[in-house]
Amino acid sequence: MYAFEDTIAAPATIPGTGAISIIRISGPDAFSICGRLIRLRHGDLEQLPGGLVRYGTAYSLQGKELDDVIVSTFRNPHSYTGEDSVEISFHASSYVATALMTALLDAGARMAAPGEFTRRAYVNGKMDLAQAEAVADLIASKSEAAHTLAIHQLRGGFSKELEALREKLLDMAALLELELDFSEEDVEFANREQLQSLLALVLDKVRSLSESFRLGQAIAKGVPVAIVGAVNAGKSTLLNALLGDERAIVTDIPGTTRDTIESELVINGILFRLIDTAGLRDTDETVEKIGIARSKKTISEASILLYVADARATEEEILAPFRDLLAMADPKRQILVFGLNKCDIFGENPQKWGGNIFVNNINNNVLSIDKQAIIMSFSAREKIGIQAVKNTLAAVIKDQIGESEGTLVSNLRHYEALRKAQESLQAVQEGLDTSRPTDLLALDLRSALTHLASITGMSIDSNDILGHIFARFCIGK
Amino acid sequence: MYAFEDTIAAPATIPGTGAISIIRISGPDAFSICGRLIRLRHGDLEQLPGGLVRYGTAYSLQGKELDDVIVSTFRNPHSYTGEDSVEISFHASSYVATALMTALLDAGARMAAPGEFTRRAYVNGKMDLAQAEAVADLIASKSEAAHTLAIHQLRGGFSKELEALREKLLDMAALLELELDFSEEDVEFANREQLQSLLALVLDKVRSLSESFRLGQAIAKGVPVAIVGAVNAGKSTLLNALLGDERAIVTDIPGTTRDTIESELVINGILFRLIDTAGLRDTDETVEKIGIARSKKTISEASILLYVADARATEEEILAPFRDLLAMADPKRQILVFGLNKCDIFGENPQKWGGNIFVNNINNNVLSIDKQAIIMSFSAREKIGIQAVKNTLAAVIKDQIGESEGTLVSNLRHYEALRKAQESLQAVQEGLDTSRPTDLLALDLRSALTHLASITGMSIDSNDILGHIFARFCIGK
Repeated sequence: MYAFEDTIAAPATIPGTGAISIIRISGPDAFSICGRLIRLRHGDLEQLPGGLVRYGTAYSLQGKELDDVIVSTFRNPHSYTGEDSVEISFHASSYVATALMTALLDAGARMAAPGEFTRRAYVNGKMDLAQAEAVADLIASKSEAAHTLAIHQLRGGFSKELEALREKLLDMAALLELELDFSEEDVEFANREQLQSLLALVLDKVRSLSESFRLGQAIAKGVPVAIVGAVNAGKSTLLNALLGDERAIVTDIPGTTRDTIESELVINGILFRLIDTAGLRDTDETVEKIGIARSKKTISEASILLYVADARATEEEILAPFRDLLAMADPKRQILVFGLNKCDIFGENPQKWGGNIFVNNINNNVLSIDKQAIIMSFSAREKIGIQAVKNTLAAVIKDQIGESEGTLVSNLRHYEALRKAQESLQAVQEGLDTSRPTDLLALDLRSALTHLASITGMSIDSNDILGHIFARFCIGK
Repeated sequence: MYAFEDTIAAPATIPGTGAISIIRISGPDAFSICGRLIRLRHGDLEQLPGGLVRYGTAYSLQGKELDDVIVSTFRNPHSYTGEDSVEISFHASSYVATALMTALLDAGARMAAPGEFTRRAYVNGKMDLAQAEAVADLIASKSEAAHTLAIHQLRGGFSKELEALREKLLDMAALLELELDFSEEDVEFANREQLQSLLALVLDKVRSLSESFRLGQAIAKGVPVAIVGAVNAGKSTLLNALLGDERAIVTDIPGTTRDTIESELVINGILFRLIDTAGLRDTDETVEKIGIARSKKTISEASILLYVADARATEEEILAPFRDLLAMADPKRQILVFGLNKCDIFGENPQKWGGNIFVNNINNNVLSIDKQAIIMSFSAREKIGIQAVKNTLAAVIKDQIGESEGTLVSNLRHYEALRKAQESLQAVQEGLDTSRPTDLLALDLRSALTHLASITGMSIDSNDILGHIFARFCIGK
């Protein structure tokens, strides 16, 4: 009846001194073990149904009084793990926590391994693997967007999409395997054209999911923004101006090298990692040189390249490094923001900067170099136009989230499984195009199924496929 | 009906990322506020009775999904605070915690001040002040003895003793005040001898409670042990040998001066603070000199003075500093342990050391200097006899706990209240002896009552006293 025969216990709250701590017990003996240690004010813990909170006193197995406790009861299958579970809430003292854990182990519980409660929830069918991973993502989320992503996955949004794909692939597999089983009778059940259009549909969806990984991960871990520009362009001033009011929620993280400084900043619910790359030391040095020397990795990994230029420099001084940066950028996955700093030299009213010939020239030149670039004018030192820069950064990412149609893959394991499924599906597609033998196609299709199933932890066996066959067709009878 | 009209909310677990966090809500609107934010899988939170745990989903007031939660319900008066209360258990993410707290405040809750839940429990009569303070002591307890002390107080053990004293004092006050009210009629209700014996009884108890403070505090915060001796006597080696196996639970605390090192060590459930005082630099320097210069405070505040001597020194080198130490000690409240270190020079078998003439001489001399001193022989370097030192330290304190007959006062506020009550009672006693006017005695008695009552937070008013009068006597009718 139970997938696990032993009963596990572990602290569920962060250890330390405070108001309340909780120890969680789960397994077939959860109620009898707790019943040996906890005397309720009314009734017998071992006989309690689930769904109740009750006052009691906890004792050691030797009868020493440990603490007043509140016990919450959960009866199989209505618990997190799907097993009988008890949560003991007590005064958050490390002495009591240790004494209570000792008593539970004395009474027959086993110390739970890390993640073991969630593992049991998965094995007992309370959640699939992707949902279990979403619990970890939810806990780690630092911004509204990351939290939304995790909640969507926890709710099974991603799992449902995978289930829909699996259904389609099972249909295809059924068609192919039938053809295989009855091949001696030369019965061709599978309509090749139908197969091809189904495959194109699935492949398209798998590809878009795997492509969403870059954005999904950026949202979960923070969108990497590389700030690039000459030493005197005011990159640090811009960074400080961006962080300014939100200092409280900013963490300074030592960069991978002493030349990069990374700061976290939440703008409109999205977490950004602002990475200040090393600046150009003199005008002879090109961005590309610096990039190769120090910041190439930062630039290539960034989702947004924020180029900062000094409005007091010449057009050529401003545009040459921008051209170099564009040569390094990948326009398919990177957004280029061109920032003209120190525009206060054109007056304090930013609406008048647009009328300035120099600013207009720069803007036109930038657009002729890169039609996609977003152009902004600001003064970091005078804090003019900074909110617009922030709004732009957030809007760019929100647009991408909007375009992504729901699920964003943020987990590396899922991404790798999707990539492998994609490869297998491409092999099927090639096989169909080149009329490869059915049994080879079926193998690739099964492999794609297995990879997709590994994301949620479902197992794919022949019965699955046969079940599908008999549900859809009526062979013999 | 409610002592407080607003509803408070606060995180009840230690903040951070982990498995579970809890936010507690208490007050008349606890259920309606939570009901606006939490949709249960079954039923309506606002209508739920107490004593239940239910699954649900928490939303912001704007309808954004925040997390899956488990809700525990407590209905007035069956809750910690005595008010309607809800505990929300959610995934321990700081993002979710902030979002959920924000939602609760948006929905009408107020952020709780520190200790406000326990304050409400006190005001609503769920616990008295001494019990509320015991909650804090329980949380802070680091050893079994400290924990036992806190549990005793939490269970109202101390409060019951105070209540018994209060009853006796009220009887006395009633006798005195009656005499006062009817003094014009020259009625002397109070039997002076009865008063005096009652007073002696109460005074004795109050005195013993206030004297228990030193031990009570030592148990709660750690029993201070000053390790005193010459530089070459092996104090540090002894300290290391004592800490040895239990390194894991030892915390090194920087001393108040660079010359003292303090280490915490739990022996048989009792927390000790071992304080290594500065050693004698050469044999000309006396313990007293060192004591005055650096360690006088440490020595005077210690509960146990552990003197360490080098068995290779001469009798006089060993005994002179011991005499000095004894001159500084307060035998009423300090225990002197005389330790003869490096006894391995007399062979490896400690049972044979007793037969050694030098050791015997030292022992006899020590006993002739101080009949109370506990004498121990050991070798810190060879780790012989170290367990006996530990057992002795623990046994000394356990004896004191045994002699203290139950309650040990560990709280400074309680101690001060007891001292003041004691002073007032002594004034009453003097007044009785010197036949001071009844109204002055009554004032002092009331003052003693007020001080005792302040410990549990009970208020003493005239009605209390009058109630007592009419319960005991039958005047007129």
